[in-house]
Amino acid sequence: MSVYPKSVLNLIDNLENLPGVGKKTAERLAFHMISAPAKETQSLARSIWNMKERVRLCSFCFGLSDENICPICSDPARDRQILCVVSGIPEMAAIEKSGSFTGLYHVLRGLLSPMDGIGPDDIRIPELIKRVEKSGIREVILAMGTHVEGEATASYIAGRLEKFSVKITRIASGVPMGGDLRYIDQMTIKLAMEGRHVISC
Amino acid sequence: MSVYPKSVLNLIDNLENLPGVGKKTAERLAFHMISAPAKETQSLARSIWNMKERVRLCSFCFGLSDENICPICSDPARDRQILCVVSGIPEMAAIEKSGSFTGLYHVLRGLLSPMDGIGPDDIRIPELIKRVEKSGIREVILAMGTHVEGEATASYIAGRLEKFSVKITRIASGVPMGGDLRYIDQMTIKLAMEGRHVISC
Repeated sequence: MSVYPKSVLNLIDNLENLPGVGKKTAERLAFHMISAPAKETQSLARSIWNMKERVRLCSFCFGLSDENICPICSDPARDRQILCVVSGIPEMAAIEKSGSFTGLYHVLRGLLSPMDGIGPDDIRIPELIKRVEKSGIREVILAMGTHVEGEATASYIAGRLEKFSVKITRIASGVPMGGDLRYIDQMTIKLAMEGRHVISC
Repeated sequence: MSVYPKSVLNLIDNLENLPGVGKKTAERLAFHMISAPAKETQSLARSIWNMKERVRLCSFCFGLSDENICPICSDPARDRQILCVVSGIPEMAAIEKSGSFTGLYHVLRGLLSPMDGIGPDDIRIPELIKRVEKSGIREVILAMGTHVEGEATASYIAGRLEKFSVKITRIASGVPMGGDLRYIDQMTIKLAMEGRHVISC
């Protein structure tokens, strides 16, 4: 016989499926929900259900959307001639939050990884090529991370886009904000050195 | 304009209400739910909703139950003459999981705390007295923690139960399993010393 009634046990089991949530955390969350106001807890249940019913991928950029076209792609204020290529939705959210980009996105489904059998066709690279070919894009910004898969995917895409008359750029690598040179790895320092720019001459 | 569509934003907001869940964790959980199979996510939503609809307090012990009487109180195999008093449901669950107790529980609603205006009537002590008076109980085990409120509540209950012909016990204090004396605080060592028992003489 279990310590908890069936409804609570079922809740704990379901919470344990979430990433980073073990038995103890699942129990703590369940206890919170038991004592929280019904309105708050039901609002959570409803928001999970509604999200799952509504959310889909934007048919232009493959970002998240409640409609067929996402709010960014349908915003007339965004610059439709600049395309920022990212490896996934969290990466797109990170750039969007920085407020440093006002063009459109192309959200890949991860990065190239030949070892895992993930090739260009698996991560929406053909869709990217088609967009660049057809939509009068002026600049493609490759905004992947600086790990091996990021570099490989960026250089593969750059190669495939070479034949189009489009500017291809890569976001800068270097010392992060607040970074102390004493604690920064050699690879980052090397990248920062290579990417140095003139401030006066 | 937000980075996320409305349904996702609403989900993140609701997840942030959970204890120990900040903005970043809420986003991470939401991203997991977005990409998880619909069946898994809907099962979570349904389990939250069902728990809130079904769960209530057992009318005997005030533990959690899907019915009017909880599985423990309605189990004929449990010893109805021993009552274990705990400060809350997580504490009851901890004892139950240890498998060291086969009697019934009385779950208080917290501990006495005169500073916060919490007196005996607020934490179901009258209900405990009534149970002891009427139900032919032989032993009451006071299983509170060893902090100030735990000690105060235990000694208050012991005083109120004195007039009944019932054995009153308190769970032992001392060195925990695997405890190394070098790292154990002086108060625990004092409690362990006072509670020493004869192993041969």
